[in-house]
Amino acid sequence: MYSTCKINAAMSIWRRLSLFVLASSLCLCLCRAEDSAMENIVTEKKAEESHRQDSADLLVFILLLTLTILTIWLFKHRRCRFLHETGLAMIYGLLVGVVLRYAIHVPSDMNNVTLSCNVNASPATLLVNVSGKFYEYTLKGEISGNEINDIQDNEMLRKVTFDPEVFFNILLPPIIFHAGYSLKRRHFFRNLGSILAYAFVGTVVSCFIIGLFMYGCVLLMKQIGHLGGDFFFTDCLFFGAIVSATDPVTVLAIFNELQVDADLYALLFGESVLNDAVALVLSSSIVAYQPEGDNTHTFEAMAMLKSFGIFLGVFSGSFALGVATGVVTALISFNFTKLRDLPLLETALFFLMSWSTFLLAEACGFTGVVAVLFCGMTQAHYTFNNLSPESKDRTKQLFELLNFLAENFIFSYMGLTLFTFHNHVFNPIFIVGAFLAVFLGRAANIYPLSFLLNLSRRNKITSNFQHMMMFAGLRGAMTFALSIRDTATYARQMMFSTTLLVVFFTVWICGGGTTQMLSCQKIRSENFVSQSCLMMDFLCVRLQIGPDGVERRSTKQESAWLFRIWYNFDHNYLKPILTHSGPPLTATFPACCGPLARCLTSPQAYENEGQLKDSDSDLILNDGDISLAYGDITVSTDATGAHTSGTPVGGVAVNSDVALDRELAFSDHELVIRGTRLVLPMDDSEHPLPLDSHRHKNETMS
Amino acid sequence: MYSTCKINAAMSIWRRLSLFVLASSLCLCLCRAEDSAMENIVTEKKAEESHRQDSADLLVFILLLTLTILTIWLFKHRRCRFLHETGLAMIYGLLVGVVLRYAIHVPSDMNNVTLSCNVNASPATLLVNVSGKFYEYTLKGEISGNEINDIQDNEMLRKVTFDPEVFFNILLPPIIFHAGYSLKRRHFFRNLGSILAYAFVGTVVSCFIIGLFMYGCVLLMKQIGHLGGDFFFTDCLFFGAIVSATDPVTVLAIFNELQVDADLYALLFGESVLNDAVALVLSSSIVAYQPEGDNTHTFEAMAMLKSFGIFLGVFSGSFALGVATGVVTALISFNFTKLRDLPLLETALFFLMSWSTFLLAEACGFTGVVAVLFCGMTQAHYTFNNLSPESKDRTKQLFELLNFLAENFIFSYMGLTLFTFHNHVFNPIFIVGAFLAVFLGRAANIYPLSFLLNLSRRNKITSNFQHMMMFAGLRGAMTFALSIRDTATYARQMMFSTTLLVVFFTVWICGGGTTQMLSCQKIRSENFVSQSCLMMDFLCVRLQIGPDGVERRSTKQESAWLFRIWYNFDHNYLKPILTHSGPPLTATFPACCGPLARCLTSPQAYENEGQLKDSDSDLILNDGDISLAYGDITVSTDATGAHTSGTPVGGVAVNSDVALDRELAFSDHELVIRGTRLVLPMDDSEHPLPLDSHRHKNETMS
Repeated sequence: MYSTCKINAAMSIWRRLSLFVLASSLCLCLCRAEDSAMENIVTEKKAEESHRQDSADLLVFILLLTLTILTIWLFKHRRCRFLHETGLAMIYGLLVGVVLRYAIHVPSDMNNVTLSCNVNASPATLLVNVSGKFYEYTLKGEISGNEINDIQDNEMLRKVTFDPEVFFNILLPPIIFHAGYSLKRRHFFRNLGSILAYAFVGTVVSCFIIGLFMYGCVLLMKQIGHLGGDFFFTDCLFFGAIVSATDPVTVLAIFNELQVDADLYALLFGESVLNDAVALVLSSSIVAYQPEGDNTHTFEAMAMLKSFGIFLGVFSGSFALGVATGVVTALISFNFTKLRDLPLLETALFFLMSWSTFLLAEACGFTGVVAVLFCGMTQAHYTFNNLSPESKDRTKQLFELLNFLAENFIFSYMGLTLFTFHNHVFNPIFIVGAFLAVFLGRAANIYPLSFLLNLSRRNKITSNFQHMMMFAGLRGAMTFALSIRDTATYARQMMFSTTLLVVFFTVWICGGGTTQMLSCQKIRSENFVSQSCLMMDFLCVRLQIGPDGVERRSTKQESAWLFRIWYNFDHNYLKPILTHSGPPLTATFPACCGPLARCLTSPQAYENEGQLKDSDSDLILNDGDISLAYGDITVSTDATGAHTSGTPVGGVAVNSDVALDRELAFSDHELVIRGTRLVLPMDDSEHPLPLDSHRHKNETMS
Repeated sequence: MYSTCKINAAMSIWRRLSLFVLASSLCLCLCRAEDSAMENIVTEKKAEESHRQDSADLLVFILLLTLTILTIWLFKHRRCRFLHETGLAMIYGLLVGVVLRYAIHVPSDMNNVTLSCNVNASPATLLVNVSGKFYEYTLKGEISGNEINDIQDNEMLRKVTFDPEVFFNILLPPIIFHAGYSLKRRHFFRNLGSILAYAFVGTVVSCFIIGLFMYGCVLLMKQIGHLGGDFFFTDCLFFGAIVSATDPVTVLAIFNELQVDADLYALLFGESVLNDAVALVLSSSIVAYQPEGDNTHTFEAMAMLKSFGIFLGVFSGSFALGVATGVVTALISFNFTKLRDLPLLETALFFLMSWSTFLLAEACGFTGVVAVLFCGMTQAHYTFNNLSPESKDRTKQLFELLNFLAENFIFSYMGLTLFTFHNHVFNPIFIVGAFLAVFLGRAANIYPLSFLLNLSRRNKITSNFQHMMMFAGLRGAMTFALSIRDTATYARQMMFSTTLLVVFFTVWICGGGTTQMLSCQKIRSENFVSQSCLMMDFLCVRLQIGPDGVERRSTKQESAWLFRIWYNFDHNYLKPILTHSGPPLTATFPACCGPLARCLTSPQAYENEGQLKDSDSDLILNDGDISLAYGDITVSTDATGAHTSGTPVGGVAVNSDVALDRELAFSDHELVIRGTRLVLPMDDSEHPLPLDSHRHKNETMS
C-alpha cells in the first residue's frame, strides 16, 4: 500500500502565530537535508520569508479591526443607527476578501516535493526521517480532493483561513462570558420563566420546524435533480439547530441607546444568551445521533433517546460546572477579603478562574462555552459583590474589551470568508428555503409561546413586543462558528454558504431597520416613559407593601413564582455564605442550626448587619421623602422596613420580598452601566438617582 | 533514499489550544482510514480523549498561576519582602515539575505506526494520502536522536512543553511593552546619557567579557575531557549576550515599595529595559555571523562587520518602526478627539496599534520585541496625553494585567522546565565558570562605566549606588526566552541548563536580599528623605530660575546636554503636533514658517494656550505659596512665569527649560502611579500633592 506525501508551504495564519519563528529558529541549526551549508541558508531564508508573510497576514486583520474602530467612531459620533459596528466589520471583511481573491495573486511555492509513504492511518503526529534527522509533523486536517489542486493556486487565500476551532476555543468564550456577565439582572429574573420557555422550548421547536421544512426542500431538490451530494434528515436538523441561535447584538445596542423598554430588552437578551447555549448543545447532540447497524441515517428510538440523554447530560453538566466555578471564585474572593487592596491580583484571579472554567469543562467532556456562560452569570451575581470598586471596573472593562475585539473579529472574518472560502455551494432553492424556514422557525418560536405565556403572565407580552422579538431574531457569531466548524461534506458546505447569507441579511436588514421597526411598532423609549412612570412605580410599591401583607400579593404575582422560591433561598442562604451582602446566617437559618450558622457567618457579616439596617432605613427615608411630596397618600412602611433585620425567623420571608424589589432595583442600576454595549454617554434615567440628594437634603433638614 | 515516518500522539500544549478540537471535528466526518464506522468511533474517542488531556494540562498551568496569586496576596499582606512573586512562581513551577517527572506516569499511547517515506527535505507542510483521503501535516520541529526513544516514555512531560516561540511572540511582547510604557520619565530622561551608556556599551562589554571567560572555561574543559560536544567561540559570545540581559523585576518591586532613590530606580530600570533590547539584537547578530567558506567558526573580518551591520540595522530599524507606530497612534488619537467619548474604542485602538507594531516589525524583518519597547515609550510620551482619563486607566490596567500574567507564567514555566526538560546538560565547570563570568561581566559593566560617567556627571553615581546596581543585575524572562529558543545542539543545551541556574540563583538570592543590601549600603528610602527634601527642592528651583538666567545654569548642567537638545525640540515642535499639550506651533516655529505652523496647529491648541498660561500661573502661585511660608527668600519668579506664552520666539528657549522641570515633575508624578508594580497602596510623597489644596486655600484667601 503506497501513498503519496506532497509538500507545500501553505499553513493557517492563526497557528502560525505560534509556529512562525519556529521555522526560523529551526533553520539556525537543524535543517540540513543534504548536509550542505548552502541549502541550510536557503531553507533559513524560506522560513524567514514565510514568517514575514504570516506577520503581514495577521497585520491585515489587525488593520481591518483598526479601520472598523475608526469608522465606528465616526458613526457613533454622527449617531448613525442604520449600521452597527458588526455590520460594518462584515463590509470591511467583504472588501478585503474581494481584494484577496481577485486583486492579489501570490505566485505559489514551486518547491513542492512528492513523497510516498506506507501509511494506514492518519495519526496526530508524524515523525519523518530526513537523512538521519527526525522531524516532527502535526496533523492539521483533511484536504478534500478538489482542494489539492487548488493548493498551488490559492496559497494566499489558504493563508487567511483560520482553524475553525479558533472560534470555539479563543473567540467565542469571551463573547459568551461577557453576555452572561452583563445580563440585566432585575428584568432578567422577573421574566425568568418566559426567557427559559423561549430559550429551551422555543429553540427546540424552531430547530425541528426548520429541520422539517429544509428536509422538504431537500426532497424537492432531489426530485428536480438540483442536489449534488448526500443530504440526510440529521443534516437538516443540524442546520435547524445552528440557525436557531439568535444574536441580537445590533438590536440590543440600539435598544440600549434608545433606552427601550427594559422587559423587552431582558426577554430578547436573556433568550439570545441562553439559546446560544441550547443550540450549541443541541447541534452536538444531533451529531452524536448514531443508530446502530449499517445504515446510519434511519430513525431509531434508542439512538434518539441517547441523543436526548447527551443533550440533558452535557447541558446540565456544563451548567453545574459553570455555577460551581463561579461559586468557588465567590468563596475565594469572600475569604481573601484583603485581596481587595490589590486590584491587580483580584482581576487576574477573576480572569484565570473564568478561563479555568472553560478548560475544566472541556477536560470533563462538557461544553466549555456553556459552562463559561453560567460561570459569568454566577460571578456577576456573587463574586462581583465581593470585589473592590476598582476591580469591578477592571474586570468589567477587561471583558468588555475582549468581547468587543472577539466580536468584531468574528464579523469581519465572516465578511472575508464569503470570498476566500473555497468550497461554497450556493443552491438557490436551498437558500430561498432556508430564509423561509428561518422566518417560520422564529415565528413558531415566538407567537405560540407568547400566547401560552400570556395565559399565566400578569405583565402580558403585547403583540408589538412579539413582532419586535420576531424581527430581532438576528443570526450572528454562534451560528457562524457552528457552521464553519465542519465544512467537509457537501451538505455542510451548502449549509455554511447559506448560513453566511442568512447572517448577512439579518444583520444588515433586520439590524439596520431596528429604529424604523421600533417606531413602526410604537414601542416607547424609556427616556420618555420613565420620567412619568417613576413616581407612579414608587407609589405602587408603597401601596403594595403594607404591613398587613395583603396587597403585597400583586407584586408577588408579577414576579414569576419559580423565581420567588429561588430568590428567597438565594437571599437568605447563598448570598450570606458567598458575599458580604444579605442578612447574617444566624438570622436566616432555623434556630436549630444556630451553631452551623455562626460558623459559616464571617465576622464581617455581623458588621454588615448594622450597615444593612442603615441602607434599609435610607431607602425608607427616600420613600418617606416622596410621600412628603405626594402627601395625600399615607401608608406606614416604616414599621416594616425598620424591623427588617430585627425580626429573626418569621419575618424574613416577608421582608425578603421587600428586599427583593429594592435589591434588584439597585443591582440592576449597577448593571445598566455594566451591560452597556458601546453607546455614547447617556442619561441613565431608569432609576431615581436624585433620591440620594433628596436624602442628604432630608438629613440636613431633620 | 528511504526514511521512516513514525507516529505518536505527543503534541505541544500551546499550539494544541488552537488545535485541540480540530481533531474532534475531524473525526466527525473525515477520518475513515479503513472506511469503517467502527474505526471512526474509535478515532473520534481518541481525539476527544486527547483534547480533554490538553485542556487538563493547560488547567494545571492556570491553577498554578491562581495558587501563585493567592500566595502572593498572603505575602503582600504580611509584607514579606524576602520572596517576590516571580521567585514564588518559580518555586511552584519546580514543585509541579517534580510531581510531573516523578509522581505521575501516564501510560504511553501504544498505537504507533511506522511509515516509510521517500523524502529528501523537511518541508513546512506535508500531505499524506491515507486510502484516498489527504491529510495535511505541519512541521513542528526536529527531534534529536535520543528524544525519539524518550517519546514513548515521556508523553506527559512532552505535553507540558511549549513551543519556545510562544515566549517571543506571545509572552514577551506584553512584558516589554509594559516596561517601555511605565518608564519613570523625569528621572529616566535626566539620566538618559548614563542609561544609554550602561545599556549599549555596558551590555556589549559584558557580553564580550563573559564570552571570553567562558571560552577559557571551554578550553579548560576540553583539556580535561569534560566536554561532550562542539562548543565554539560564537557559542560563548552567544551565551554572553543572553546572560547580559538583566531583569530586576524583584529588586524594582522592592524599590517601589520602599520608595528608594528615584535616580537609582531610573538607572536600574532604564538600563534593564534597554539592555533587553540590546541583548536580543546582539544575540541574533552573533547567530548571523557566518564566515564564507567551509569552516564556519573561524574569525573573518567581513563576516564580523556584517554582523555589526545587522546589529545596527535591526536595532535602528526596530527603533524607528516602534517610534513611527507610536507617532501614528498619537496622530490618530490627536485627530480623532471625539474618540475620547468612547473609551472602549480608544483602548481597543491603542491595544491593536501596539500589537500591529510587533507584527509590522516582524513582517519587515526587524525585531518585534524591540519595536514594541520603543512603541510603548513613544505612546507613554505622546499618545497617553491624548487619551481620556478613563482610557488612561483602562490601558494602564490592561497592560499591567497582561504583564503580570505573562511574567508569572514565564517564571513558573522556568521552574517547571528544570525537571521536565529532557536534554539538560549540567556541567560543573561550566556552571561555576558561568557564575563567575556573570559576576565579572556585571562588574566590568558597572564600575568602569560609572567611573567614566562620573567624570561628566554633576549628580555622581556614588559607590553604594554602584554596588547596588551590581547586586541588582538579576537575570529573568528575556534571558530564559533567549536560551530556550534553541536547544538543539549540545552547546545550547548546556547553556540552557546553566542559564536556568543563574536565573534561579539571582532571583532567589539577589532578589531576596535586596532589603538587606539596601540597608547595608545605607541607601536612604525616599519616604524618609522626601519629607525633608521637598521644601529644599522647591527653594532651590526658585533660586535657580531667577529672571537674569544666571543661576539657571546649575539646573541645566544637572540634566544631560543630550537630553536638553532633545527636550527643546520635543517640547516646541513634537508635543504641539502630536498632543494637545505644549505651546501652539505659531509661537515656537520661526516667523517665516508661520503659515505651516497655523496649518499644523489644531484649534484646540489655541484654546490650550490659555489653559497653559493658567496652569503655569498655578505653578507660580504654588511657589509663591511656599515662599509665604518661608518668607525670608524673595525671588521674583512671577515675572518670568507670567510671560511664558507671551514671548513669541526668543523667550521660548528660556521658558521651555523652566517648563521642562515642571512638566517632568508633573508627568513623573503621574508615572509614579503608573509604574507601580504591584505594591500595597502607598503614600506618594515624592511630589507636593498637598500644594493643590494650598492653592485653593490661597485663592479663597486672595
